[in-house]
Amino acid sequence: MTLKEKYATTRQRTERICAPLHTEDYVVQPVADVSPPKWHLGHTTWFFETLILKPYLKGYMEYDANFNFVFNSYYESLGVRVVRTQRGNLSRPTVNEIYKYRVYVDEAMQLLLEQPLTPELETLIVLGCNHEEQHQELLWTDIKYILGHNPLLPPYEESQPSAWATPPAPSFTHIKAGQYQIGYTGDGFCYDNELNPHTVYLQEAEIANQLVTNREYLEFINIGGYKQFQHWHSEGWDWVQNNDIKAPLYWLQVDGQWQHYTLHGLKRLELDEPVAHVSYYEAAAFAAWKGYRLPTEFEWEAASGQFEWGQRWEWTESAYLPYPGFQRVPGPVGEYNGKFMVNQKVLRGASAFTPPGHSRATYRNFFHAHVRWQLTGIRLAR
Amino acid sequence: MTLKEKYATTRQRTERICAPLHTEDYVVQPVADVSPPKWHLGHTTWFFETLILKPYLKGYMEYDANFNFVFNSYYESLGVRVVRTQRGNLSRPTVNEIYKYRVYVDEAMQLLLEQPLTPELETLIVLGCNHEEQHQELLWTDIKYILGHNPLLPPYEESQPSAWATPPAPSFTHIKAGQYQIGYTGDGFCYDNELNPHTVYLQEAEIANQLVTNREYLEFINIGGYKQFQHWHSEGWDWVQNNDIKAPLYWLQVDGQWQHYTLHGLKRLELDEPVAHVSYYEAAAFAAWKGYRLPTEFEWEAASGQFEWGQRWEWTESAYLPYPGFQRVPGPVGEYNGKFMVNQKVLRGASAFTPPGHSRATYRNFFHAHVRWQLTGIRLAR
Amino acid sequence: MTLKEKYATTRQRTERICAPLHTEDYVVQPVADVSPPKWHLGHTTWFFETLILKPYLKGYMEYDANFNFVFNSYYESLGVRVVRTQRGNLSRPTVNEIYKYRVYVDEAMQLLLEQPLTPELETLIVLGCNHEEQHQELLWTDIKYILGHNPLLPPYEESQPSAWATPPAPSFTHIKAGQYQIGYTGDGFCYDNELNPHTVYLQEAEIANQLVTNREYLEFINIGGYKQFQHWHSEGWDWVQNNDIKAPLYWLQVDGQWQHYTLHGLKRLELDEPVAHVSYYEAAAFAAWKGYRLPTEFEWEAASGQFEWGQRWEWTESAYLPYPGFQRVPGPVGEYNGKFMVNQKVLRGASAFTPPGHSRATYRNFFHAHVRWQLTGIRLAR
Amino acid sequence: MTLKEKYATTRQRTERICAPLHTEDYVVQPVADVSPPKWHLGHTTWFFETLILKPYLKGYMEYDANFNFVFNSYYESLGVRVVRTQRGNLSRPTVNEIYKYRVYVDEAMQLLLEQPLTPELETLIVLGCNHEEQHQELLWTDIKYILGHNPLLPPYEESQPSAWATPPAPSFTHIKAGQYQIGYTGDGFCYDNELNPHTVYLQEAEIANQLVTNREYLEFINIGGYKQFQHWHSEGWDWVQNNDIKAPLYWLQVDGQWQHYTLHGLKRLELDEPVAHVSYYEAAAFAAWKGYRLPTEFEWEAASGQFEWGQRWEWTESAYLPYPGFQRVPGPVGEYNGKFMVNQKVLRGASAFTPPGHSRATYRNFFHAHVRWQLTGIRLAR
Repeated sequence: MTLKEKYATTRQRTERICAPLHTEDYVVQPVADVSPPKWHLGHTTWFFETLILKPYLKGYMEYDANFNFVFNSYYESLGVRVVRTQRGNLSRPTVNEIYKYRVYVDEAMQLLLEQPLTPELETLIVLGCNHEEQHQELLWTDIKYILGHNPLLPPYEESQPSAWATPPAPSFTHIKAGQYQIGYTGDGFCYDNELNPHTVYLQEAEIANQLVTNREYLEFINIGGYKQFQHWHSEGWDWVQNNDIKAPLYWLQVDGQWQHYTLHGLKRLELDEPVAHVSYYEAAAFAAWKGYRLPTEFEWEAASGQFEWGQRWEWTESAYLPYPGFQRVPGPVGEYNGKFMVNQKVLRGASAFTPPGHSRATYRNFFHAHVRWQLTGIRLAR
Repeated sequence: MTLKEKYATTRQRTERICAPLHTEDYVVQPVADVSPPKWHLGHTTWFFETLILKPYLKGYMEYDANFNFVFNSYYESLGVRVVRTQRGNLSRPTVNEIYKYRVYVDEAMQLLLEQPLTPELETLIVLGCNHEEQHQELLWTDIKYILGHNPLLPPYEESQPSAWATPPAPSFTHIKAGQYQIGYTGDGFCYDNELNPHTVYLQEAEIANQLVTNREYLEFINIGGYKQFQHWHSEGWDWVQNNDIKAPLYWLQVDGQWQHYTLHGLKRLELDEPVAHVSYYEAAAFAAWKGYRLPTEFEWEAASGQFEWGQRWEWTESAYLPYPGFQRVPGPVGEYNGKFMVNQKVLRGASAFTPPGHSRATYRNFFHAHVRWQLTGIRLAR
Repeated sequence: MTLKEKYATTRQRTERICAPLHTEDYVVQPVADVSPPKWHLGHTTWFFETLILKPYLKGYMEYDANFNFVFNSYYESLGVRVVRTQRGNLSRPTVNEIYKYRVYVDEAMQLLLEQPLTPELETLIVLGCNHEEQHQELLWTDIKYILGHNPLLPPYEESQPSAWATPPAPSFTHIKAGQYQIGYTGDGFCYDNELNPHTVYLQEAEIANQLVTNREYLEFINIGGYKQFQHWHSEGWDWVQNNDIKAPLYWLQVDGQWQHYTLHGLKRLELDEPVAHVSYYEAAAFAAWKGYRLPTEFEWEAASGQFEWGQRWEWTESAYLPYPGFQRVPGPVGEYNGKFMVNQKVLRGASAFTPPGHSRATYRNFFHAHVRWQLTGIRLAR
Repeated sequence: MTLKEKYATTRQRTERICAPLHTEDYVVQPVADVSPPKWHLGHTTWFFETLILKPYLKGYMEYDANFNFVFNSYYESLGVRVVRTQRGNLSRPTVNEIYKYRVYVDEAMQLLLEQPLTPELETLIVLGCNHEEQHQELLWTDIKYILGHNPLLPPYEESQPSAWATPPAPSFTHIKAGQYQIGYTGDGFCYDNELNPHTVYLQEAEIANQLVTNREYLEFINIGGYKQFQHWHSEGWDWVQNNDIKAPLYWLQVDGQWQHYTLHGLKRLELDEPVAHVSYYEAAAFAAWKGYRLPTEFEWEAASGQFEWGQRWEWTESAYLPYPGFQRVPGPVGEYNGKFMVNQKVLRGASAFTPPGHSRATYRNFFHAHVRWQLTGIRLAR
């Protein structure tokens, strides 16, 4: 796929995700972590406009000077911005206007992509595509949150979800003690937080070949796992108490029967499906109750060739920290990862919402320990 | 006007107010006091459906059982409801769906209005129309807030506002000491909080024939009125400090020039216009600085035949309290006024946003002392 | 009693109230409304030092320049100060130091009181004594709060409380419709908020001769009064829900038996005692449930010669507002009352904690509607 | 030293630290992280009573059943407790009462210590002594906070602090790439979080032999380091903005001169002293500005034989996570460390406030990233 095709494919996929939405669904922001879909549409476009078109396309005319204020996410180096919690208060620019903005920027990008590009500029455009892919995943999870927290529980699509196959019997991959190489060594795209491949020493360990299922997690609920402090971190226990947490996000007990909200509407819980929408606190408490623990990100990466992954972002025990020799790039691109490297946990793998080809075994996702609106799951280790 | 005409006129006016909006403008709720326009459209309709159609129209089929949860404002007696601060998180029902709901309810109401009605039912329908008129006023102020707090400051309508005439020289109406009759004595519609006409004794006083203008208020700003504690109530002073208040809502200093957001967009401040969008705290501080005070609601009512009113809701010094003999009606209608009679101030008059014929000299509006998004103004007394 | 005797008596009473305390009891501030006893000891002394000794006693040397910052309560005109919620964080000045400060100021005051005084200065000293009497009442209620919220529930004094006599059968005083004179007309001391005696017109009414007892209030609890929204103001209902209120402050159900914390420790509830420690919200809800209402402050004052009062501060329906012609005095004394005249309710009477001779029929006490740590009670009207 | 001597020495040191305090200083809790000194006195005693005397000393009579509620810190397995933020609201038990409690428990412990002890019981008593040593360090820092946040800035002791010697020229210890052994391997006491000695692989690195001084840190302030977002983590930058942070805790600019509060009172800043009272955010931002980073806890431990440490707890880049094979012990002792292993940073070394012999090269201290009331310092790496 040429870069021009990559660009076009990426941009179209974003709009295809939004196609089933009503205009109103594009606008709302029920919690701070969720952004309105129209904001995602605008922000990914602003990213190309600001980091690529303005500096690199000769004669480019900015679409609207106010959009920098509206669509900047967190780049301190790119000026003041609408605070994150206020995104759902903005009725303007309208959805139509933002689609026009996309067309305008896409046309300018096409122009640019027909010109000879320096390697640096190519890298930046690939970064822009990967950035938009990340927002596609967020679009799925944010749309699910917006509809799944509406009292009418409207489905995103009417079609029937496909059933889950019974998972194979639990088994474990053995990790031998010794030195392992960690980090990205290929020549494709990767983020700066995967760079500087380096040696780590791992102790002997075992890591599960399967993800924890709803069936297994339900057992934890049924024995009273949410009421027994001893499985929980102190912070996790406070979080459970203060938020009255009793089950994963989107789980609902209706007449004694567990159901969960899906993009197809409210459905009976599929017991063979890997559990999703759990926080790190829940993942760690479940593992502790089982007499296991979560894998570290290095164990996961070292063993990742031995098991299937890609349905759930998997919580690890690792904190999100810089690899040896990590350097923040100067300028706005340098704000992409480094400044978030404190008080977050690493997730590895990919999820059913991740665009195809977006993730890889060295990919490092990260969220705060209480976050549940992503398709987060649990893999055990010991 | 027949009741049937009154109903139709009222319902159409609501929709005419919303006509210039984009779909997105119907959805957002930038602060708790403001409701999304689509919520007003649905709530006023739900009021007719719940209090009139369901109990009184034989064979009426509820439009959607979920709407009770979505569109109940504060009626404890009518079941659980979406909390006020969450109204802006709801993308569904969509604007189209709500307009369909309005058509459905209007058709049912037409049926009912062709039948012979008991006086009790007529009163209830008149109440529903007055209720919707109150929400028309809120629609204006909420739309102004939604657009006026958008960083793009879009106008609601492009047309030019009409200029304000130079006001006449300040003069005062004299109120003689003695007994006055207060409260509604006519035979038209009024709210329960105006009832039980009764005697009050007023001391001698004077009340201004004109409202305070932007010009006069600007003088208060310019001499540093927002920085001098001695004019303010203790709570008002805290409110000024904590919210960094420096001018009325919608005032903006651009390059040393005062402008204000209006439904026609951002405009230069009209110095001869009565000041608007001030809190009770500001009104009282301004009056104290001038060596005056605000009138009581009884002084206002007693003298209201002597001066013009109707452009601004006017803050009074009176707390919102029950008149002697006030009784809450049993059932949901009884929740209309009585339960709010603590910690609010009375406003008298009407505003440029009040539907024609909606207010009267005995009308008692009420808001918390810090509220500014209404067209609130200042009349002095001494 | 000479002014010199009045001064000495007042100052000694304050210290007698504190005598049974341990040093630690002087220091803590469990909630913002409560001040540490040592702060009261210092603040009342600072009042005399700042408003009287510094301006009027020639050659007076300030005790410690830092104390102005520590002991100023809310006087904006007297400089910056420790914020109210931080008073319990201060271990210094120590209790001993503050008692030394009291001796120092008392000696200086004795000097001053031996000189000929202008009427203005006499008035100011009387104000200082009345101010200290108000703080004596607060000392009682704050000490009760400090000990009554300690998990050990220590008594303030070990002695046995005297039993309450069975109250007489309920009866009512009739108030005839007509004009009444309100406000202080004597030539003794009164606060500025009682001044400007003036005429009010009252409708016909009845006011109870007895306060509501624990027995009657218990009935309200037992029928589920705290769970029935229809008796409550909207704000009161929110307050009940958010704070999980189920009974007056200090009431505790132990093994199905109602007890209450008193200065003598935890005791069985005295059913014949007037109910205390209720908020305005509770008082109004109780009255509504009984089919009554609270009296206005004017009804109370007009009828106050006909019934006994003095055990409980009695909530009225009246908001705390200025009397006609009320003027704030310039300077710090003017901050005493006027700036609080918004969003508070008037209480009339006096309480068992009020120093003898401190209150009178025209006295206007005021608190926010949710306040309960005072000896607040209920008298019904209709 | 025998265990009996160890016990006696430890207990006496605690009381010696408190000796210069006034009674009032024992009581207050100006922020949640700080506990009142009397709480430390009681809590360390409760620890011996609850974990040792009650289960192991035959015939032991509990001192006061209420103390479990008052002096439990965070042990869920040991019952309900006073919430942490409420400790400063308790005037009782008094300081005298708590000293009596100490005597009572000490006498019982002497009895027990004269009996033959199982190794498990010996371990538990040693844990109790180490626990009390940790609280001695907290006593120092909490006393400093209590006095250093009092507007009178009283000194803890009047004596003159000793001057700091000029530090040697900056130099670095080289760490060779390769495998290192981490964790406690001795046969003395250590905490469970140091256990399971294991191999880690370190990349080549350099670690500073000296701590960062006030002189160096002042340079960071002077060039505007607190106003330049690019040095900071995103969370750190928010923390700086929201709390208006401009310098380390206790630093005060008086007439353009930097001073800092010390236990000897307010003193001129010693430029050669290692900087203290910085958060992890500040430590990391300082390092980033210098073109360095903080060491990991493994680099620190591997190189710790090569440099002097012990004046400041040193922030590392490492998150506080379990070592491979870490197991929580069942019962209350298992709540000591494991449940805190999320969202905290590891500190290594010891501070001037650490009791002699308490720390060691494998010791892992941990705090949240914003914490500054400890004697926290900065060592650079690259």
